Amino acid sequence: MSANEEEQQDQPIASAEGFASLFPYKENLPGVVDDMLTELEKRGKVGHVCQYALPSGETVIRILNLLAEVLFPGYFGKAALDRANLPFHLGETISLVYDLLAGEIARCLLHERQHGQRRDRQECEEEGCAQAFRLLEKLPRLLDVLDEDVRAAYAGDPAATGYDEVIFCYPGFRAIMIYRIAHELHLQGVPWLPRIMTEYAHSITGIDIHPGATIGRSFFIDHGTGVVIGETSEIGDNVRMYQGVTLGGFRFRKDEEGELERGYKRHPTIEDDVIIYANATVLGPVTVGKGAVVGANVQVTESVEPGTQVTIEKPRHRIKRRENQ
Amino acid sequence: MSANEEEQQDQPIASAEGFASLFPYKENLPGVVDDMLTELEKRGKVGHVCQYALPSGETVIRILNLLAEVLFPGYFGKAALDRANLPFHLGETISLVYDLLAGEIARCLLHERQHGQRRDRQECEEEGCAQAFRLLEKLPRLLDVLDEDVRAAYAGDPAATGYDEVIFCYPGFRAIMIYRIAHELHLQGVPWLPRIMTEYAHSITGIDIHPGATIGRSFFIDHGTGVVIGETSEIGDNVRMYQGVTLGGFRFRKDEEGELERGYKRHPTIEDDVIIYANATVLGPVTVGKGAVVGANVQVTESVEPGTQVTIEKPRHRIKRRENQ
Amino acid sequence: MSANEEEQQDQPIASAEGFASLFPYKENLPGVVDDMLTELEKRGKVGHVCQYALPSGETVIRILNLLAEVLFPGYFGKAALDRANLPFHLGETISLVYDLLAGEIARCLLHERQHGQRRDRQECEEEGCAQAFRLLEKLPRLLDVLDEDVRAAYAGDPAATGYDEVIFCYPGFRAIMIYRIAHELHLQGVPWLPRIMTEYAHSITGIDIHPGATIGRSFFIDHGTGVVIGETSEIGDNVRMYQGVTLGGFRFRKDEEGELERGYKRHPTIEDDVIIYANATVLGPVTVGKGAVVGANVQVTESVEPGTQVTIEKPRHRIKRRENQ
Repeated sequence: MSANEEEQQDQPIASAEGFASLFPYKENLPGVVDDMLTELEKRGKVGHVCQYALPSGETVIRILNLLAEVLFPGYFGKAALDRANLPFHLGETISLVYDLLAGEIARCLLHERQHGQRRDRQECEEEGCAQAFRLLEKLPRLLDVLDEDVRAAYAGDPAATGYDEVIFCYPGFRAIMIYRIAHELHLQGVPWLPRIMTEYAHSITGIDIHPGATIGRSFFIDHGTGVVIGETSEIGDNVRMYQGVTLGGFRFRKDEEGELERGYKRHPTIEDDVIIYANATVLGPVTVGKGAVVGANVQVTESVEPGTQVTIEKPRHRIKRRENQ
Repeated sequence: MSANEEEQQDQPIASAEGFASLFPYKENLPGVVDDMLTELEKRGKVGHVCQYALPSGETVIRILNLLAEVLFPGYFGKAALDRANLPFHLGETISLVYDLLAGEIARCLLHERQHGQRRDRQECEEEGCAQAFRLLEKLPRLLDVLDEDVRAAYAGDPAATGYDEVIFCYPGFRAIMIYRIAHELHLQGVPWLPRIMTEYAHSITGIDIHPGATIGRSFFIDHGTGVVIGETSEIGDNVRMYQGVTLGGFRFRKDEEGELERGYKRHPTIEDDVIIYANATVLGPVTVGKGAVVGANVQVTESVEPGTQVTIEKPRHRIKRRENQ
Repeated sequence: MSANEEEQQDQPIASAEGFASLFPYKENLPGVVDDMLTELEKRGKVGHVCQYALPSGETVIRILNLLAEVLFPGYFGKAALDRANLPFHLGETISLVYDLLAGEIARCLLHERQHGQRRDRQECEEEGCAQAFRLLEKLPRLLDVLDEDVRAAYAGDPAATGYDEVIFCYPGFRAIMIYRIAHELHLQGVPWLPRIMTEYAHSITGIDIHPGATIGRSFFIDHGTGVVIGETSEIGDNVRMYQGVTLGGFRFRKDEEGELERGYKRHPTIEDDVIIYANATVLGPVTVGKGAVVGANVQVTESVEPGTQVTIEKPRHRIKRRENQ
């Protein structure tokens, strides 16, 4: 090969537009499209496309980020804020959240038509607005609760240098912020959107809290990756937990047709002032009593008395000398 | 300080462009650049830069998102779809995926030159197109399999309200969707790209499935954070698992030079109808037999008989009353 | 309903701008804004907004991505690089990092004013530049160390096909790259920014390493989701660990006022050549001696002798036949 050809060989491939048309495969793509349409039609997914609206994941993320800006002005977002422009900026942001949230809620409501609940489009739009407004009215109270969560994080983590660090970058705090917003929407009866929000939190923090769970005040998850808090969990005040903790279900019930029962209480109740250490598992509708401590790696399948500390028995390890490695 | 100066002090720092040039450090940056070039040269990384192309992480993510739009039209993406425009939209998206995928595959093939497998640039481009087309031909069959995964999720999770919720926001479902696409490319012999895809899934879901693993039909991972499914794992049909489950390797083998052996079967085989609960670990090329259940937190290092249930022995906990906290 | 109305009903809801103004809720938003301002004022958060600057999460992410481009040119970023343009591209990128980093460091320093350390704005700007430059001077040495980490990954993972795969897509490698950059800034005394960086790494990899931890050379985390390495951990050379490993604190100390003590050594020391397998927990300021192996799921709360292997005792499982499922 000549020096020029060598050099040509060494050029990285920038994009395929240049070469993809040189080869005959593309001519056969219409066949692929037809096969796909046939398969979609067969599975009833074409009608589905047109029957009802679906929320936009991107818009939901945007709503959550804007709400973070409203609850903690100056921490997030690009605007340079000062005392003079804060009211204006806050008003603008709240108005934008209202619009976006009304739209997403309306889509979720319209989506419910799939399940046989006939809804008028205009009904959904009006209810979307009403529900969005209801949530925004709760913002001062949400701030009050979230402030306590921040303090709980600082008080519970020796590595925390201040409240700002918690607000700005603690994943446990971001997860609880999103959960509390989603939980309010859940209580308001908004379908689907609360779960979309908490699964977004799950994606960015590794913390999976179902919006149906009930969580009290001054709640702190440290580190957080792997935490699972199931749909019917109930958590009191001043509870702290660590990475990998599961509050899970146990022995799912089935009805006479062999279908899963849904909605019944199957997750734990955690009372006030409990601490649950890393990778502990609490399974079933048991109660961990007030002030109890569940040690790392403990698996709890029965209720725990208040004020007790449950740790794994001193583990009998096998200890042996390693041979040549 | 005067009131004006106080106010000046209180202005947030918008960006450094204004002030960075006021201080002399920047004049010394060329020295830093030279040192860096010297170090790169020393490590043979300058030649590396020019020798072969590398895929674009951003483009790979875009390909995966577009494929999600094709497999589940209306769920993702911005387009307002209806019966009339769906075929057109589908065709356009499939065509775009083809171009992007052909380009990324071609880069991965060209990259293999590093390992001594001399490839002609044009060969790589043509093979990129062929491989992209092969994958797209499989889309109807992929949809069929993914549909079963959706149903398995709904049937296996009491918290699921419907198929749409699973498709739209379940991380376990997103991970399996990406894995199945990556696995097809792996079977087609495309280097590197499958692993880039599954590590992206890992980043957004916390679920780490090597594209070389083999997974049967109706597969469901609930919650998912922390799941690891190793390269040589084999999983049958109707298998369900929970967060924190590891199907891992055990006692790596080394050759005579002390180098790790690669590629041999070292991960578990999980037969049909198995359930593996949260944080269980299955290590080594063992078999978990058909219909078995592995309980939470169990560590399995030997094969498990079909139809048996393995749980940790009722843990002996230390339970004691807490003193003043 | 007429056919037209049916069709109208079936149109997805595109956005709320069209309908949100049709309903009266929006007129009441100013009341919501006022309530929010009152709550913020009450909590002293309005003054906070104007008192000091805060870093930009988006800019920090951009800095980390640009540094990855500098350390591993050609792997990331969009530029088509070759031998001729590499010095120019490198110089441009390093200059941009300098500007952005100086700005973010200056903001972090100015932020410290909250904690009573009065700082002159110009002081912060100059120190921002000085600190940014100090970090950039370390880049060749950082590359040297990171190169060893890459080799450690390849040598420690049978599934790795080459160094490029590790650099491009291994989350464990991305986490250590970000940690090492953050740790240098931590050693330089830059407040807050190191933690922002490592929490970003935590978000995208599931690996949580405090920037205050000390980690030696040739370090490898495989899979990684759920790893927690606490603030005062010390790790030697040639250490390898797996997903779910916690190097955590134990029995937090409190001072006479009942406040948490901060900063004291409370996390483990891991000596050279140690391997820690999946989901093992090492708690407290204990030492895991040189060449030791901590098996999967082991909970260590006492020091481990060098050269020993600690595994859980062969678990006594309950094994029973499953009834009809």
